[in-house]
Amino acid sequence: MKRYQKSAPYSYTLGVFPTLELLQTRADCVRHVLISSRGQPNQGVAQIKTLCAQRHIPLEVADAAIERLAGCENCYVVGCFTKYTCALQPGNHLVLVQPSDAGNLGTILRTALAYNLTNLAIIRPAVDIFEPKVIRASMGALFHLNFAYFDSFAAYRASASAGGQHLYPFMTDGVTPLPAAHFEPPFALIFGSEGTGLDAAYRDVGASVRIPQTAAVDSLNVAVAVGIALYASRPRPDSAFADRFTMGL
Amino acid sequence: MKRYQKSAPYSYTLGVFPTLELLQTRADCVRHVLISSRGQPNQGVAQIKTLCAQRHIPLEVADAAIERLAGCENCYVVGCFTKYTCALQPGNHLVLVQPSDAGNLGTILRTALAYNLTNLAIIRPAVDIFEPKVIRASMGALFHLNFAYFDSFAAYRASASAGGQHLYPFMTDGVTPLPAAHFEPPFALIFGSEGTGLDAAYRDVGASVRIPQTAAVDSLNVAVAVGIALYASRPRPDSAFADRFTMGL
Repeated sequence: MKRYQKSAPYSYTLGVFPTLELLQTRADCVRHVLISSRGQPNQGVAQIKTLCAQRHIPLEVADAAIERLAGCENCYVVGCFTKYTCALQPGNHLVLVQPSDAGNLGTILRTALAYNLTNLAIIRPAVDIFEPKVIRASMGALFHLNFAYFDSFAAYRASASAGGQHLYPFMTDGVTPLPAAHFEPPFALIFGSEGTGLDAAYRDVGASVRIPQTAAVDSLNVAVAVGIALYASRPRPDSAFADRFTMGL
Repeated sequence: MKRYQKSAPYSYTLGVFPTLELLQTRADCVRHVLISSRGQPNQGVAQIKTLCAQRHIPLEVADAAIERLAGCENCYVVGCFTKYTCALQPGNHLVLVQPSDAGNLGTILRTALAYNLTNLAIIRPAVDIFEPKVIRASMGALFHLNFAYFDSFAAYRASASAGGQHLYPFMTDGVTPLPAAHFEPPFALIFGSEGTGLDAAYRDVGASVRIPQTAAVDSLNVAVAVGIALYASRPRPDSAFADRFTMGL
């Protein structure tokens, strides 16, 4: 078994938590699971063993392979799974234009799931969503989401899934401040890359939104910006959509 | 020159942007600046050269040293500076209990500056705020903030700077949902570690707050949670504090 390569048809979950999520949500994709002889037997590992037995997924003790695949960090479980494709569903979308940082993308996946925004469009060039670092930062949220890559924003717009979307590009010079913005469903919240944000042309594709902040920093981290936007755009208890959600308020 | 060590009295800024922030805000701490012969001469590098000349800070071309200090990434400027201490000022505070991830801490610093929350208390054990990865993730925001480490939350509470603070621990089972929370200044917003959050005892130290989210994930990433909290607690245009800020709304 080799360390992860973008061109390979399979990837890895590193650690107990994402491997459990993998087994619980995408069991049909799992090739095999490796466990370490050094890890403390804990509840998560016991659950992994049970799930593998139930689903006839090969499980083996393989310390050297785990160390090679996971690198230098403490990691006691590795799941190997076949990469899969998804189709975006109608409804609200999150659109990331050229995201380049694996940690940020993983964090965004986790936040998207936390706010029930389960359809993610990614505009290339972009980081590989199956990179183990993305999966780890997502805490396994990846396996609960639909995602699709597009070669351009125009290609996303032209896709069957994005037919009626109301478009809200987030820009530091956006027209409407977030607290005053209203997001008409089905909507697409659009965010630019870590380095440059969205270019000026996005002002014309929809109702641009800016997140209030002081001028002391150029912009917020993109994962933080997405978090604030999803918090602010979550369905309110009095909205027609609220009964689809349980948000703790 | 050696790679960064926590025990050393100096640290490094890696890259043009954080080095510029260092020179503009903490010039008295700068020991010297290294530039690469390979970097494209850009506006930032020209500005760094001017600032070093004005302030009589030694500047040298040192490709090998930069490569050693910055590791494998593309980096064309390194600033070396003496570590310094700060004192927390009265006013609103951000309190991080045992943060362990350098990237998260840096992102939180950047967000704190974006929301003008410029006093940061850190409860040990915790990641080293002068670690170059923290500085880089903060985009140099570190140099604009006051911070202080404390051995325990009790030590923070007992400090002169935290006398009249209203305490708001953020917990996934907090009593008040964030949209309904009111933050009475001077306040301290308190966040737990990446792994475990705040332990149950924090429910009793103040008015605990929860950030609405679905149950699909256990919790938000701590840097995302801080971002949402600072967005929601920012001074509103109609508040008595609003004239101190320019928030874009």
